[in-house]
Amino acid sequence: MLPQHEIDIRVRYQETDGQGRVHHANYITYFEMGRTELLRSQGLSYRRLEEEGFFLVVADMQIRYLSGAQYDDLLRLVTRTIRLKAATVEHEYEIYRGEELIVKARSRLGCVNVEGRVKRIPAWLDPGADAADA
Amino acid sequence: MLPQHEIDIRVRYQETDGQGRVHHANYITYFEMGRTELLRSQGLSYRRLEEEGFFLVVADMQIRYLSGAQYDDLLRLVTRTIRLKAATVEHEYEIYRGEELIVKARSRLGCVNVEGRVKRIPAWLDPGADAADA
Amino acid sequence: MLPQHEIDIRVRYQETDGQGRVHHANYITYFEMGRTELLRSQGLSYRRLEEEGFFLVVADMQIRYLSGAQYDDLLRLVTRTIRLKAATVEHEYEIYRGEELIVKARSRLGCVNVEGRVKRIPAWLDPGADAADA
Amino acid sequence: MLPQHEIDIRVRYQETDGQGRVHHANYITYFEMGRTELLRSQGLSYRRLEEEGFFLVVADMQIRYLSGAQYDDLLRLVTRTIRLKAATVEHEYEIYRGEELIVKARSRLGCVNVEGRVKRIPAWLDPGADAADA
Repeated sequence: MLPQHEIDIRVRYQETDGQGRVHHANYITYFEMGRTELLRSQGLSYRRLEEEGFFLVVADMQIRYLSGAQYDDLLRLVTRTIRLKAATVEHEYEIYRGEELIVKARSRLGCVNVEGRVKRIPAWLDPGADAADA
Repeated sequence: MLPQHEIDIRVRYQETDGQGRVHHANYITYFEMGRTELLRSQGLSYRRLEEEGFFLVVADMQIRYLSGAQYDDLLRLVTRTIRLKAATVEHEYEIYRGEELIVKARSRLGCVNVEGRVKRIPAWLDPGADAADA
Repeated sequence: MLPQHEIDIRVRYQETDGQGRVHHANYITYFEMGRTELLRSQGLSYRRLEEEGFFLVVADMQIRYLSGAQYDDLLRLVTRTIRLKAATVEHEYEIYRGEELIVKARSRLGCVNVEGRVKRIPAWLDPGADAADA
Repeated sequence: MLPQHEIDIRVRYQETDGQGRVHHANYITYFEMGRTELLRSQGLSYRRLEEEGFFLVVADMQIRYLSGAQYDDLLRLVTRTIRLKAATVEHEYEIYRGEELIVKARSRLGCVNVEGRVKRIPAWLDPGADAADA
């Protein structure tokens, strides 16, 4: 099964804008935190990944904003890997305030080396690698 | 014809991340600048719009990242209104570095009042309003 | 005694810049989180403060950068109220990575109403109010 | 004479916060833009500086906030080198909205190499180098 992970995010004052809501660009930063913590929950580290010469770059992203979060809201972000193969990985994100879904998104990331050339995602990063080999 | 407008954007150091490229969330801020200047090029002002009680909120956004900009790059952003009706407006964005297209995106914004209720976009904002009435 | 509080902050990728370190503007956002959580640790809420018409605005800030934090570092921020009287409050901040002090700062905030006029800090916010009255 | 340079900055929506003013951390980003353009006005480039292995890191900064800028304000930033010697450079900043001074600041930057070791600022960066040699 592909991994999923939840984190809590407390909205910072700096993340709000003149409308008194989280500026819509900042959810992208939340998604990135979700991916970092999803990896950590599997015993992995994106920092170590980069130190070993693997860089994940965002290729595309779709976001639906259903409602706006406010300063000091405690949000819950669910990050889910929905597809991982060769040199790309796809994630799905849901952000909740209480029971209310406020933002949904999907992203596709590519794996490259330090020169920006496409690189196969290392096996130790792939949660389905063992199963596929069996 | 629906309006379109171009602006130049100089990449700030603060907008780069540890990969030495513009962090992918920051393009969303560029798009917002594009919309502000598109309105200004039509003799309008988003600030005045808010002062009169109309707020544009982003409902969805799709972004394709084709290449990464670096600190001090001089980018060209083309912002185009592709659809405007009742309470929603859709834009298309293209970011170029020289002749190279590096980011493409689309967004849909809704018009609401200060309480967040859907509101018809004011006629003076609608470039096609006169033509449609003719 | 004037209150003090500690929080942990995990460095986000988006907070780094092209030098691979936390961009120096972002520590200011950390200090703001520190003040929010310092208030919460006293059973207070900055959000409620604003809802009641009190706004804290930063009047000045001094920062010393001793070393640079990196992506995924787990930092410890100590926030301390060092002076609180009438319409101003002063804080001191220290950010540590392990035992190493990496950033020190001080700020002075003023309390204003929604029109920006100076306003006395409400008694319920002042930890020394009771003592002073005794 | 030590160099000085002025740039105009249009406030972005994303730079405002829930108080409807530019978040106080964002002025630090403006100062950085000021330094970049001050160098460019002298025919130099901070990007080239980094490519040649010289990195400027902020050692300390003092900021006084006198008033708050709003979305779409057109600000004028004056950046002035006030001292440059060996491995450090000091700047002074003033931000105006019309004739009103709204933010004042000073910073001290150190020059380091890619490993973070202190490095003498290259002579071609030093506007007073020729005079001193004469």
